[in-house]
Amino acid sequence: MERERYALLDAYMRKCMRDADGAHDREHVYRVLGVALDIAVTEPDADKDVVIAACLLHDIGRRDQMQDKRLCHAAVGAEKAEKFLKKNGFGEEFAQHVAECVRTHRFRRGGAPQSIEAKILFDADKIDVCGATGIARTLLYQGHHGGALYAQSADGSLSDGTGEKGETFFGEYKRKLENIGERLFTARARELAAQRRSAALAFYQSMLAEVRFSREEGSALLQKCLCDRG
Amino acid sequence: MERERYALLDAYMRKCMRDADGAHDREHVYRVLGVALDIAVTEPDADKDVVIAACLLHDIGRRDQMQDKRLCHAAVGAEKAEKFLKKNGFGEEFAQHVAECVRTHRFRRGGAPQSIEAKILFDADKIDVCGATGIARTLLYQGHHGGALYAQSADGSLSDGTGEKGETFFGEYKRKLENIGERLFTARARELAAQRRSAALAFYQSMLAEVRFSREEGSALLQKCLCDRG
Repeated sequence: MERERYALLDAYMRKCMRDADGAHDREHVYRVLGVALDIAVTEPDADKDVVIAACLLHDIGRRDQMQDKRLCHAAVGAEKAEKFLKKNGFGEEFAQHVAECVRTHRFRRGGAPQSIEAKILFDADKIDVCGATGIARTLLYQGHHGGALYAQSADGSLSDGTGEKGETFFGEYKRKLENIGERLFTARARELAAQRRSAALAFYQSMLAEVRFSREEGSALLQKCLCDRG
Repeated sequence: MERERYALLDAYMRKCMRDADGAHDREHVYRVLGVALDIAVTEPDADKDVVIAACLLHDIGRRDQMQDKRLCHAAVGAEKAEKFLKKNGFGEEFAQHVAECVRTHRFRRGGAPQSIEAKILFDADKIDVCGATGIARTLLYQGHHGGALYAQSADGSLSDGTGEKGETFFGEYKRKLENIGERLFTARARELAAQRRSAALAFYQSMLAEVRFSREEGSALLQKCLCDRG
């Protein structure tokens, strides 16, 4: 890609992402781009210019979704990307291809990615939810939206997140982070996910052990200190 | 402590902490109480009733500090605790002792804790900033306040947080979390901090390696894809 074109896309991305939260900021975009190019090395059929444009523009619809929860940032971002690319002379086919990648990058919505470039964006975006980085971004996002670390089960014991529906870190770990490697399309992304898996698992297990110690041993010690009115 | 008195303090704490962020919520209070009672087992001179009351009430000034940044939650909390305890028949000396513990529990302000009960509260509160739990609470807090994961140095490389002044996770890890064990007063707390240290360090190192890979290898690959206008 010509440097001038890259700079144009980069400036548009930066403009769209001015108010982004720390989990979906420009650094997230650049990490996704870096990992996507690493995956692309192992996928010789991939059009790198499409990959670069799709990575830079994949989250430009986030602000719209934040302002109106009914909107899907992937759908809005795809529309914005296609319009911007056509207006700036990137060509009809290129614009449509990039838009398709953006539309299908989302974890739970948007349809499955079809082209190799769309699969690379999808995978690179998910690698940024793996490992310690994925844990950190999840916690940052939970903090931004007022989430808690964990919930208490009905019997008063701590929930480890299994089957949880509420917005807690343990719930999100179990629901999304724990097995994210299973949903990837490319072999290189599966390799990266496997490398990062143990860091996330170790963190979750350490934290569960720490909070259980503080709460469960603490409750037992407290009961010994409490007495009925003498 | 009589169950009724405990329930009274607990209800007051819950009322004061209704709007707390996820890093300083009721679960934080209960974890601090649990760890404080664990430390108190090894400190036979400690008055457990003072420890229990001080732990329950130590963060009741947080909302005031959130609403007016010039206030110190430890100072406000101490005043509120003393007033509440006196009004509810806990005795003048007990109320003053608990207030002193609350006033000196803060990391950077409030004066050093003097009594063994104040030292136990200080240490137990710091143990909740150790290990995976400390990492998680720091990230949740950063997310709540719009912080970022890391900063870029002037030369474009990623900062590992050393000497950083801005509000980033890596900066807070280096400034506060990395050596928190050195500031503790009780032997049992130092033991708990040492047990939890490796989980936090491993997380920080994994994340630094991941983001460096994504950003630095990514930048090198990107340069190979960019060309001047042909």
